[in-house]
Amino acid sequence: MTAKLLTGKNIADNMAPALSSRVESLASEGVSPCLAVVRAGERPDDVAYENAIAKRAAGLGVVLRREALDAGSDTVRVADAVRSLSADGGVHGILVFRPLPARVSEAAALSVIPPAKDVDGVTDAQMAGLYAMRNYADAGASLFFPCTAEAVIRVLDHYGIAISGRRAVVVGRSAVIGKPAAHLLLARDAAVTVCHSKTRDTAELTREADIVVCAAGLASGGRKDRLGAEYFAPGQTVIDVAVNVDEDGVYGDVDTDAVKGVVANITPASGGLGAVTTLVLMEHVIRAAGAPA
Amino acid sequence: MTAKLLTGKNIADNMAPALSSRVESLASEGVSPCLAVVRAGERPDDVAYENAIAKRAAGLGVVLRREALDAGSDTVRVADAVRSLSADGGVHGILVFRPLPARVSEAAALSVIPPAKDVDGVTDAQMAGLYAMRNYADAGASLFFPCTAEAVIRVLDHYGIAISGRRAVVVGRSAVIGKPAAHLLLARDAAVTVCHSKTRDTAELTREADIVVCAAGLASGGRKDRLGAEYFAPGQTVIDVAVNVDEDGVYGDVDTDAVKGVVANITPASGGLGAVTTLVLMEHVIRAAGAPA
Repeated sequence: MTAKLLTGKNIADNMAPALSSRVESLASEGVSPCLAVVRAGERPDDVAYENAIAKRAAGLGVVLRREALDAGSDTVRVADAVRSLSADGGVHGILVFRPLPARVSEAAALSVIPPAKDVDGVTDAQMAGLYAMRNYADAGASLFFPCTAEAVIRVLDHYGIAISGRRAVVVGRSAVIGKPAAHLLLARDAAVTVCHSKTRDTAELTREADIVVCAAGLASGGRKDRLGAEYFAPGQTVIDVAVNVDEDGVYGDVDTDAVKGVVANITPASGGLGAVTTLVLMEHVIRAAGAPA
Repeated sequence: MTAKLLTGKNIADNMAPALSSRVESLASEGVSPCLAVVRAGERPDDVAYENAIAKRAAGLGVVLRREALDAGSDTVRVADAVRSLSADGGVHGILVFRPLPARVSEAAALSVIPPAKDVDGVTDAQMAGLYAMRNYADAGASLFFPCTAEAVIRVLDHYGIAISGRRAVVVGRSAVIGKPAAHLLLARDAAVTVCHSKTRDTAELTREADIVVCAAGLASGGRKDRLGAEYFAPGQTVIDVAVNVDEDGVYGDVDTDAVKGVVANITPASGGLGAVTTLVLMEHVIRAAGAPA
């Protein structure tokens, strides 16, 4: 028996029609939802994500503004670009691709984004909102979760995988994916464990979970360090969020071929979360555009 | 065999001399560290904590300003008091007792505190700093953790209880104690699980931990819902942070008498964390007073 593949494209396609009609309805009020992306340099990951955004935005009628800065840009240059987009009433959402070049202070560049345009949840106000949130019902329209972490929840919901009362293990503790995913699962009433590179018995922890979210990134060990069958158990759902790159291409944290013979549900090696993440981003931009000015 | 009792008073007494000499050194520069506490109404918990603060502050030479507002105060009244203390250059730290009266918007009242005076880590900037922190080494001098959560770490460190690589379970997910304690344990490289009222198998989770932090509060069930021996296992360390009150007095989340026969280390039913929390608060105020203006 092999696991059900939790593909993302169908979820994204399901989400699209409702978003299109919200864009039309905003257009009838004279509002064109607009996302501005700020990219410093030409990192292939960033360019690929930007192109996926551009395609989806065009399909939905969302305006995309691309601010492509030089890879040698400094903090002032990036912050100035962000500040100018912040002040522009025609821009409803701002996404800054990360990591920024090493010489840029990410904290300084991101702190300039007004929380109301922070559609990827990177500002203090949005992070604190997620941190302090008791449950999903508390999340007001002005709270934007990091899109990738929210995509994890959307995938689980789409496939009818229960979260409340279940055990979830998140492998990885970055503020970009691991921590926001943990907070969202907690706000959906899972018992949530975060483990990481300093955890001695990760496999013992992951084997006992109902849901395992893999978001560690295998920067050092590469493919040979992927989580294999020994990390998983029958009946589990595995969401692989990680995007690692080597000369042979893109791969996640999980050895999908080995693990799909063990668990009940797993995201595919490619075509998993990316499309959903892009749609969540579009939804946030449209929500920001519809908010009272 | 009975567990070692992790008493707090000795930790507080150990911390005090170093703080006293920092106060003296600041005095020689003409700075008198000053904490302002804002209390609306006369909740017995608040008054007891305020009196403990007053005693410790007097002992260390920290100035205490008490703003006692009427229990009927509204958001504007509380925010005005906080705003006036914020603007006062002689005040280095501000603590607002919570919960505030029901008619006060806590978020609005707390948001007025400048992060540099937010010695209990309640503002967006401080919460986001804790959330995003990679590890303790990242914590700059301007980052103030919620005092009770930091006291948990101080107790573990004082008694030489290893955190890194160990499993910690936090029972309770409030933004006041449960979540900050979980983030601090994570930043000290524990694998951290948060469970709560919606968790089905809390005892299974707590029994497998090295460290259990109890911070749920047993508001509904009272003493009969305390965590008994069946929640624990030999060799564990149990930190009971909760302060519950009934007609017979104050009690924690743990049935200490029953559990101390099982585990290796446990905070006492009283005299555990309170004194350490107060000292951590004093340390934050002194740090805030010493920061460059």
